[in-house]
Amino acid sequence: MAHLQQPHTNAAIQMSKANLFYAQSGGVTSVINASACGVIETARQHKDRIGKVYAGRNGIVGALREELIDTGKETARAIAALRSTPSGAFGSCRYKLKSVTENRREYERLMEVFRAHNIRYFLYNGGGDSQDTANKFAQFSLEQGFPITCIGIPKTVDNDLPGTDNCPGFGSVAKYVAVSIREAGLDVASMCESSTKVFVMEVMGRHAGWIAGAAGLASEQEGDAPHIILFPEIPFNREKFLNKVKRCVKKFGYCAIVVSEGAQNADGSFLVDTGGRDAFGHAQLGGVAPLIANLIKDELGYKYHWAVADYLQRAARHIASATDVKQAYAVGKAAVEFALKGKNAVMPAIIRGKGKRYTWRIGEARLADVANIEKMMPRNYICRDGFHITDAAREYFRPLIRGEDYPNFKNGLILKPSTALGGLNQDKGPYPYARAILAITILFHRHNVASC
Amino acid sequence: MAHLQQPHTNAAIQMSKANLFYAQSGGVTSVINASACGVIETARQHKDRIGKVYAGRNGIVGALREELIDTGKETARAIAALRSTPSGAFGSCRYKLKSVTENRREYERLMEVFRAHNIRYFLYNGGGDSQDTANKFAQFSLEQGFPITCIGIPKTVDNDLPGTDNCPGFGSVAKYVAVSIREAGLDVASMCESSTKVFVMEVMGRHAGWIAGAAGLASEQEGDAPHIILFPEIPFNREKFLNKVKRCVKKFGYCAIVVSEGAQNADGSFLVDTGGRDAFGHAQLGGVAPLIANLIKDELGYKYHWAVADYLQRAARHIASATDVKQAYAVGKAAVEFALKGKNAVMPAIIRGKGKRYTWRIGEARLADVANIEKMMPRNYICRDGFHITDAAREYFRPLIRGEDYPNFKNGLILKPSTALGGLNQDKGPYPYARAILAITILFHRHNVASC
Repeated sequence: MAHLQQPHTNAAIQMSKANLFYAQSGGVTSVINASACGVIETARQHKDRIGKVYAGRNGIVGALREELIDTGKETARAIAALRSTPSGAFGSCRYKLKSVTENRREYERLMEVFRAHNIRYFLYNGGGDSQDTANKFAQFSLEQGFPITCIGIPKTVDNDLPGTDNCPGFGSVAKYVAVSIREAGLDVASMCESSTKVFVMEVMGRHAGWIAGAAGLASEQEGDAPHIILFPEIPFNREKFLNKVKRCVKKFGYCAIVVSEGAQNADGSFLVDTGGRDAFGHAQLGGVAPLIANLIKDELGYKYHWAVADYLQRAARHIASATDVKQAYAVGKAAVEFALKGKNAVMPAIIRGKGKRYTWRIGEARLADVANIEKMMPRNYICRDGFHITDAAREYFRPLIRGEDYPNFKNGLILKPSTALGGLNQDKGPYPYARAILAITILFHRHNVASC
Repeated sequence: MAHLQQPHTNAAIQMSKANLFYAQSGGVTSVINASACGVIETARQHKDRIGKVYAGRNGIVGALREELIDTGKETARAIAALRSTPSGAFGSCRYKLKSVTENRREYERLMEVFRAHNIRYFLYNGGGDSQDTANKFAQFSLEQGFPITCIGIPKTVDNDLPGTDNCPGFGSVAKYVAVSIREAGLDVASMCESSTKVFVMEVMGRHAGWIAGAAGLASEQEGDAPHIILFPEIPFNREKFLNKVKRCVKKFGYCAIVVSEGAQNADGSFLVDTGGRDAFGHAQLGGVAPLIANLIKDELGYKYHWAVADYLQRAARHIASATDVKQAYAVGKAAVEFALKGKNAVMPAIIRGKGKRYTWRIGEARLADVANIEKMMPRNYICRDGFHITDAAREYFRPLIRGEDYPNFKNGLILKPSTALGGLNQDKGPYPYARAILAITILFHRHNVASC
């Protein structure tokens, strides 16, 4: 392992005031920067105990490569602006630390960097894998006699973390898909008699149908879009589905369908893995929406349109849910407070109040109980026929999309995080990510870190 | 032809105060209801000259079937609310009147309905085809000795109408695609080192690349998404394109691509043509994003994601451009004023001021000069290499996406027009469009109108 940057000495490590390392992990969400904002602003309120707040350039990889962004160089205004910027301002990565026995070097490297920079707090903002990493690292650091307080910060559009009522990032995707299918549904409705009769919108959700289910909120009265939802949890039944489409078109004039990317056959295989041709007779290119649309065209002859929202849905800060933004900020804030209270290997969780009116507060979940477990939609959230959501689901989803939290615009466009973090990037040229990647590539070879 | 509804008599036709018929045509936009609002509110200010304002249920078909919605039954508040609702509140249709010699019966039928309802003003809100219809009908009504004042109201997301600087509906799609590719681009950028390297977003635009071009606004500094735009105007060059993708990934770490649905081969054929045709005989497109993504995967091996926005883009009232909403309202208002001034067979046009600061005013275009002509992007709006927009294009596009005009939300969802038009739909049950379609189906057979 290469030498650490100077002038970090052992003396620095002995300082009573410790530094904090924050990293974003996995697929970003439209509100992950709100969590970052919560972390940094709260840490700044505790300058007696927290020294520097470092953010990892491209997540945990930034620690392995000693690419630490000193957020202290940013003005309070720049940090506040983070709250409403899309994407991951510091960069993220898809990188899972293996077990200690499988890759001890990585854990040692992290320890080395943390020691050198007097980092005693590690806040890891991600999904199940990240909570697992944080949990493992807490244990490892204890064994090494340099205990690092490891706090997970929940984040996933998939909403599949256990131990929390919902996951920051999900509410905004939920709002995006519900608003989008309402808008597109009305569009189709307004001219279905002489034009498109079937509209299919594909949404994310490989194993759990939370996102697809949330789109169901758009249907408030009989006949509203979406008319059919295809969940990963319910095996696809071709005949039942086609009959339902036909009935919808007869009754309402059109049929709006939301399909989860993870929609499955009865044998558990994905619909898109069946090797079928796509809507255009070409080799399958991925995309269950064109597959479904083509099936309907072939069997029922209806004119169709389809959309695949893909990253647009999880990146859409412009239509973020105000509830989601607040909660994303709150878990960031709570993570710092947990760390200062001496908690370890836990994650702030969102706890829903029991009353009829929606209330929530921050609770606590043990990382060991959260890591690597996917929370599926309860069966009672899906209608008996498998094609829509129940009132129980509506009650769950509804408050999560409530409220609008509009970001700042300039020249008609949403501001980039680089604009928000002007100070950080000013000396890095116009393209911080790309520059960072170049820098990382160099460090990469220098440090000889395992490839990711 | 069936009898007209009673008690419309010849005496009614002689009244000095005439009625107005407004119809929405073709694919709707997120601001077409703002034009409807402009028409109705302005007509109400001229009660001395305009009696009833009828809207056609499902556009011109509503006139052929005598399905006239009396907007006078709506409160001022309900009409004002129209301004910010998505889709076509009164329904639209894909239905083009043939020439008088080809289908005289239809023209006669329209005359019959207009006479019976003392309609002397016909305001047709649509694209090139609709302006053509309005123009033909103005001529026909003159020949019939019952002159109808025909005013076109521009509307098309394609922005391809001549005689106007831009078309209402376009600015909002432009804003949607620019904001979306910025958000998704930042998402990809934040984790491109270890994950997706290529993102392809497909946008509308069959023959003209206006929408694809507007997405280029998101790129303000070198390295910003989108890095490549594929226009219908520029024949697709596989080698040049792949080289450019490779260079982008090398330089910026990733490559974000916007591709127009109408992207074409050198021989003029679409990259993707499903073989389907709509009521106007246009080819049904869609699905070029997966094609492009797959090509890149095969040739360069990069991990990719793709999105097809389809109707989401033109229906997205939640991210409408304030400039667009204002202009959509203004052309509706001007159409009524033109009619009252005795103008005929014209269309309000948007005229851009010459100064450096963007200004616009309403001018006038002859329908004969507008009908059936597609305005393409000037070649000097596209970079020399064919893969991006020039500064001249930026100057043109920028003001059109400026400003946000947020609609009303309830329970986290954008309001439906049926909610806005509560009075109109109250006695129609929960689903006005479907109910209307049932009613129309009955009338359809009664009137024996040509099928659409």
